[in-house]
Amino acid sequence: MNKRNQRTKNKKNQKNPSHRNSSIRNNPKWGNPNSESIQIVEGRHAVRESILAGTRKVREVNMSEGLDPGTVIEDIANLAKELRIPLKLHAKSKFKSMTTTESAQGVQAICDPLPELEIEDLVEEIENPFILVLDGITDPRNLGSIIRSGECAGATGILLPRHRSVRITPTVSKTAQGAIEHIPIATTSGIPKALTRLKELGVWTVGMDMVAEEDIYDLRVVHDPLALVLGSEGRGLGRLTRERCDLTVKIPLSGITESLNVGAAAAIGCFEISRQRLTKLKR
Amino acid sequence: MNKRNQRTKNKKNQKNPSHRNSSIRNNPKWGNPNSESIQIVEGRHAVRESILAGTRKVREVNMSEGLDPGTVIEDIANLAKELRIPLKLHAKSKFKSMTTTESAQGVQAICDPLPELEIEDLVEEIENPFILVLDGITDPRNLGSIIRSGECAGATGILLPRHRSVRITPTVSKTAQGAIEHIPIATTSGIPKALTRLKELGVWTVGMDMVAEEDIYDLRVVHDPLALVLGSEGRGLGRLTRERCDLTVKIPLSGITESLNVGAAAAIGCFEISRQRLTKLKR
Repeated sequence: MNKRNQRTKNKKNQKNPSHRNSSIRNNPKWGNPNSESIQIVEGRHAVRESILAGTRKVREVNMSEGLDPGTVIEDIANLAKELRIPLKLHAKSKFKSMTTTESAQGVQAICDPLPELEIEDLVEEIENPFILVLDGITDPRNLGSIIRSGECAGATGILLPRHRSVRITPTVSKTAQGAIEHIPIATTSGIPKALTRLKELGVWTVGMDMVAEEDIYDLRVVHDPLALVLGSEGRGLGRLTRERCDLTVKIPLSGITESLNVGAAAAIGCFEISRQRLTKLKR
Repeated sequence: MNKRNQRTKNKKNQKNPSHRNSSIRNNPKWGNPNSESIQIVEGRHAVRESILAGTRKVREVNMSEGLDPGTVIEDIANLAKELRIPLKLHAKSKFKSMTTTESAQGVQAICDPLPELEIEDLVEEIENPFILVLDGITDPRNLGSIIRSGECAGATGILLPRHRSVRITPTVSKTAQGAIEHIPIATTSGIPKALTRLKELGVWTVGMDMVAEEDIYDLRVVHDPLALVLGSEGRGLGRLTRERCDLTVKIPLSGITESLNVGAAAAIGCFEISRQRLTKLKR
């Protein structure tokens, strides 16, 4: 199925919003990005993808007045009309006071929360799972960028710890440029325990570790179901997490600088797996 | 030469500071990060590398009082003592008022500017050049992260436009974690003209472009001198820049999200070249 077909299919799943006339001002919870009952999405690409993906209901779109017209803004306006999502225009200063990220680029969507998933949802009925396990990323820009890289590389799921990690905040969804709508994201109470469960489910657990002996360039298990495990900024993999991995691999560095940032390491790791899997397909 | 030897060699090049008694307070220029006569470096790794690399003179190190001791802080204190670089302790609030980045991690170095280099410096007397050309990156965190990824991948030089791009600000050097000290950085008045010059110097110019036909995974010219050319955030390669490249390559995407961020694309591109070059060495 090509991308466009998949999107059209998803679009049909978008139900008409039942709260069509509700307003952010009438519901005090809507102003609070930490509320569990709604999630705020900001930024042009992130808002467009939240509507296109159809993963969850978009209740309302807020726009700033005086935006330069652009393809993405027009897409959002057309989609909102087509799917009968209330679109509200606000004066610039009013819009700014409603937003939560540094630059919302003039658009905000009020959405239902993303579905709450468990580890099993990332494995069962998934063809050749490729899961990205992120143990304790604390910078929302890093988390958003890593989810984006993973989705682009064809990862089939993301696993995050429920604690000791940034949650899916508006900054994460904006930096992910809509990728959070297209890839299942599950949470777990503890990463080491989750790795044991993944093994039970037939998934190889591969830790990325600067001091590993094997290079990621020859990943023996690449064509089997696998989970790529990344540690936090600065500290890398925790001891217990590293011990639970079936194997660890490193990205060989050729310079003097001691390490890559976690976003770069994740992008390289995900695309190296993607490359090795694509190479097999070609043969 | 291993990393440690290279560092030791460089350390010997570090001359004793001639302005040992000068103070940031006595020289109004020193408080201004835009001044051409000095450059401010902040952050623990960035400051340590600025001293270790010996690429330029470090005139003074400023530290905040009450820092948690840590390996890097101790390294900096020991190096400053050994190389007779004045180290000054400041009260927390005073230190904060002197810094220019969001979080200086308690340390700041006042350095001579990095050497001003031309295109030729990135090619002549360099064994098999691998140059990263960055056409118009505007976010300092992106630029810092890309320089770090490039240096880690074994790139031998960075080329930046003199205008329409962020300069080497304290945020860039901090995000680069010291990589700016270890890789030559040249500037040019125009990227398209620079690409023509690189070709004259025998360097292949390879543009990274989302709509290229060829994949980066089979880069025919990888073992020759080459320059990898990246465009700006959002817009990618400019038309003129793309036309001047000998060839363009893409990273094949397997997801629904339309594009990678430029930092991720640069990391993947640099390490794919590194992988292909290392693979040849092994044979």
